[in-house]
Amino acid sequence: MEKFFYPRSLVVFGASTTKTSLANIVLLNNLQNGYQGKLYGIGSQEGELSGIKIYKNVSELPEIPDVAIFLTPAKTIPPLMRACGEKGITHVVIESGGFSEYSRQEKTLEEEVSQIADKYGMKVIGPNCVGTINFDIKMMMPFGFFSNIPAEAGKVALIVQSGGVGGTFLRSFHGYGITPGKFVATGNKLQLDETHFLEYLLQDEKTEIITSYLEGFKRGRDFFNLTMRSPKPIIVLKSNRSRASEKIAQSHTTALSGSDDVADAAFKQAAIIRVEDEINLINAVKIIGLPLMKGRRVAVLSRSGGHAVLTADACAKFGFEMKPFPESFLQKLKTIYHTRVIAHQNPLDLGEIFDYTIFTDILEEALKLDAFDGVLFNHLYIAQYEAQMSRTFLQGVEKLVAKYKKPVALAMISEREEILDVSKNYSFPIFTSPLEAADALHTSLAYYESRQSRDSRGKEPVYKINKNVIQNIKERCGTEKRIALTNEALEICAACGIEPVKSQLLKNTASTEKIS
Amino acid sequence: MEKFFYPRSLVVFGASTTKTSLANIVLLNNLQNGYQGKLYGIGSQEGELSGIKIYKNVSELPEIPDVAIFLTPAKTIPPLMRACGEKGITHVVIESGGFSEYSRQEKTLEEEVSQIADKYGMKVIGPNCVGTINFDIKMMMPFGFFSNIPAEAGKVALIVQSGGVGGTFLRSFHGYGITPGKFVATGNKLQLDETHFLEYLLQDEKTEIITSYLEGFKRGRDFFNLTMRSPKPIIVLKSNRSRASEKIAQSHTTALSGSDDVADAAFKQAAIIRVEDEINLINAVKIIGLPLMKGRRVAVLSRSGGHAVLTADACAKFGFEMKPFPESFLQKLKTIYHTRVIAHQNPLDLGEIFDYTIFTDILEEALKLDAFDGVLFNHLYIAQYEAQMSRTFLQGVEKLVAKYKKPVALAMISEREEILDVSKNYSFPIFTSPLEAADALHTSLAYYESRQSRDSRGKEPVYKINKNVIQNIKERCGTEKRIALTNEALEICAACGIEPVKSQLLKNTASTEKIS
Repeated sequence: MEKFFYPRSLVVFGASTTKTSLANIVLLNNLQNGYQGKLYGIGSQEGELSGIKIYKNVSELPEIPDVAIFLTPAKTIPPLMRACGEKGITHVVIESGGFSEYSRQEKTLEEEVSQIADKYGMKVIGPNCVGTINFDIKMMMPFGFFSNIPAEAGKVALIVQSGGVGGTFLRSFHGYGITPGKFVATGNKLQLDETHFLEYLLQDEKTEIITSYLEGFKRGRDFFNLTMRSPKPIIVLKSNRSRASEKIAQSHTTALSGSDDVADAAFKQAAIIRVEDEINLINAVKIIGLPLMKGRRVAVLSRSGGHAVLTADACAKFGFEMKPFPESFLQKLKTIYHTRVIAHQNPLDLGEIFDYTIFTDILEEALKLDAFDGVLFNHLYIAQYEAQMSRTFLQGVEKLVAKYKKPVALAMISEREEILDVSKNYSFPIFTSPLEAADALHTSLAYYESRQSRDSRGKEPVYKINKNVIQNIKERCGTEKRIALTNEALEICAACGIEPVKSQLLKNTASTEKIS
Repeated sequence: MEKFFYPRSLVVFGASTTKTSLANIVLLNNLQNGYQGKLYGIGSQEGELSGIKIYKNVSELPEIPDVAIFLTPAKTIPPLMRACGEKGITHVVIESGGFSEYSRQEKTLEEEVSQIADKYGMKVIGPNCVGTINFDIKMMMPFGFFSNIPAEAGKVALIVQSGGVGGTFLRSFHGYGITPGKFVATGNKLQLDETHFLEYLLQDEKTEIITSYLEGFKRGRDFFNLTMRSPKPIIVLKSNRSRASEKIAQSHTTALSGSDDVADAAFKQAAIIRVEDEINLINAVKIIGLPLMKGRRVAVLSRSGGHAVLTADACAKFGFEMKPFPESFLQKLKTIYHTRVIAHQNPLDLGEIFDYTIFTDILEEALKLDAFDGVLFNHLYIAQYEAQMSRTFLQGVEKLVAKYKKPVALAMISEREEILDVSKNYSFPIFTSPLEAADALHTSLAYYESRQSRDSRGKEPVYKINKNVIQNIKERCGTEKRIALTNEALEICAACGIEPVKSQLLKNTASTEKIS
């Protein structure tokens, strides 16, 4: 699996010296964004593309590339894969569509691909996918143009079933100041699936948070078992929840919809954070990066009275408690500033204060209090007057959060340009309304609580099963062409470690008298 | 009421020639943004402020201003108001806080203000508010600095209880390309309340959509009666829904929380669009500006297969039907473009198409179909390559929507900068995810349906009440210092038009025999 993320060389099929092809885009993306590995192209004509050599046949390559990427029509792939196998290539990414997601007839094509992979012991991603990205080495397989590569890789990984949704996530991560690390789009999952990649990313030291877009599970139980032990937060947007989406998902990535209720229950049990939309996913990543909310007690500080009222409603919606501030805090407040027309309570209306050092002081006092598990701060300002002070304040908030190990959900209520700039360029996460901030704190608390309950469960019971007994009964039934008798059913129960009711087999009615 | 929105002159109390005061900000806002009426200041020192004359006493003013605005401390207001009354000023806005929202003791101050208003027949907005704005004449009373005034006034009005929330709404309207027309912040609603302003805006020809932020109702029944007849959409964010927000709302604008369930039921009956958050309010304004969704049948067109799956889930969530496209449409599609690897169905995956004229053609064919009530279009692109084409496309969509009188909810999935630019500068509304777009279509449908059901109700029954009977019984009880007897209670029922059970008054037990 490491080779898919840290390849030393790539060969891309479908390259062209005369026109723009998707394969060319893949090669150029890597060249221009700074991938240091070797790049080769395979195309119908020999030549060069910005210094990258294009060969006609894979057999001519001067080395065995770590990964082969296919962007040629579906039907061309089996012979090309065979040639790769002969060359000794073991890792293959089939980006081309037109397989079973297009029509059931193309299923035989997929079977052929599977057989070739088996024969040569190849690992295969796809088909109908965009492969992997590793920002750590600036290596990227998707066939769309790529820019905005982070200078340094981040700690958030993505496992997505759809390249389109994955690309959207990456662009939004950029827009919301979240730095991705590793990415994989699995497509039809003919061989490698989300569970393989989850396993890899769970042990990957550079990954701290795993996000995922899935339309279905290939091995639900294995995925679930992995997540049950995950020390890393896993955030999943699982679509294909309804009868309505089933058909389009099948046609998109061959995903079959399972029962959404089952997925939901499994997610809860395994402390997977389930989100409904891209923006929920982004907000979850942001809040999970802060210390977790470990209880329901929120202190609300608000630069606007109206937003304080909205916040109180939002906190009530998510079941948070806004207990009164302790007397000591109110006394402390009096030493920090003198109120003129606003009464002190929780939520605390800061509408009279225009001095940012006072905001920081009050926030610190609130974080010190044992009576609260986290703070929701409504930061309302006009960029024209306070942009610079606000940025300094944010850095102060970040330090306080690290110092007191409690989350501060900051609802930044300002011009859209200001919000965009701050969320792209400052590391401390911001939300854009009291409701969104309260929702985020709730995500944090729900994750904390479900992880607590997941990790405090005992081990799952393991049953020893006597397979011989079951096999014998099965064979007997098969020979005699009948289903199991009552006594055999009870024997099967016993063989599985389930204590059956006491029973005795009677050969004739007279024997009933002998039963004690 | 007209004077509060179209004043020919304003006088602002609290102006200063030596330092920046809130009153100065009000005067300068009007001066700099192009208000053509006369401006006067009242301050402790005579002088000038950017050419605006500051007087020491209102009596010295050369004319009777249409509206007086107070920004002086609460306690100073009764004598200043009296002076205004003597001068003949009839319209007053008290922006200062420190009244009953601060402490119950200040209630007597409010009572004094009321008495003065009554004595001089004054109309009063506030206290603890920011007054009105009329973008039509570039007149604005709030004491915060103001810029980004729309060149022409729009048709969306705002009635808000909180100046802070109102200001946020205005900034967001600007950010989302919504042009406001008239605005009022009511504050403590000592005299004029949301119902007065609703009444004014309902008859105001320049207002087409009314939005509102309320923390409580002063005259709920009157508000409800007005909304029951409203031909204009009314969108309300009503906070102060919970026990938790009650105290802070009281302290913010003296709002008392009523039962939120009652509000909810009344909103539904009166076809008021209730929203939960600022972004919901903005999305509601955007979708309500398009032709309404008149049924549950949605055609989905999507430039990404993954987003098509997400859209199918979102449509299912809101109870929409995604029926298959009719055969005639599929045949038509074949004449528009040739599919290679994507099957035709609803949602229609446009992933293979990169020609914008084809998008427009397909959209037009979809809008033509009687089988659908509206379209959800996932518009996924990278700004670097398609920004200009996208803008031309949007103008085409706007024309098609006008032509076919059906809504198109456009989910624009692109870079944040691109989304911001388009939503600020292009009139056709965009949403940012399939879920948000589906939610918007649902808002449109819910409004359409509730208005249908509201307007098809019969008239409310009117009961003729014989007030004399009730008055006589009341007086008799008062004289005899007792509550009403059973026979009197029944008489009251009859006087109200409620048929009581048959009854007869017996003077003694013997009379029972006579009853038939």
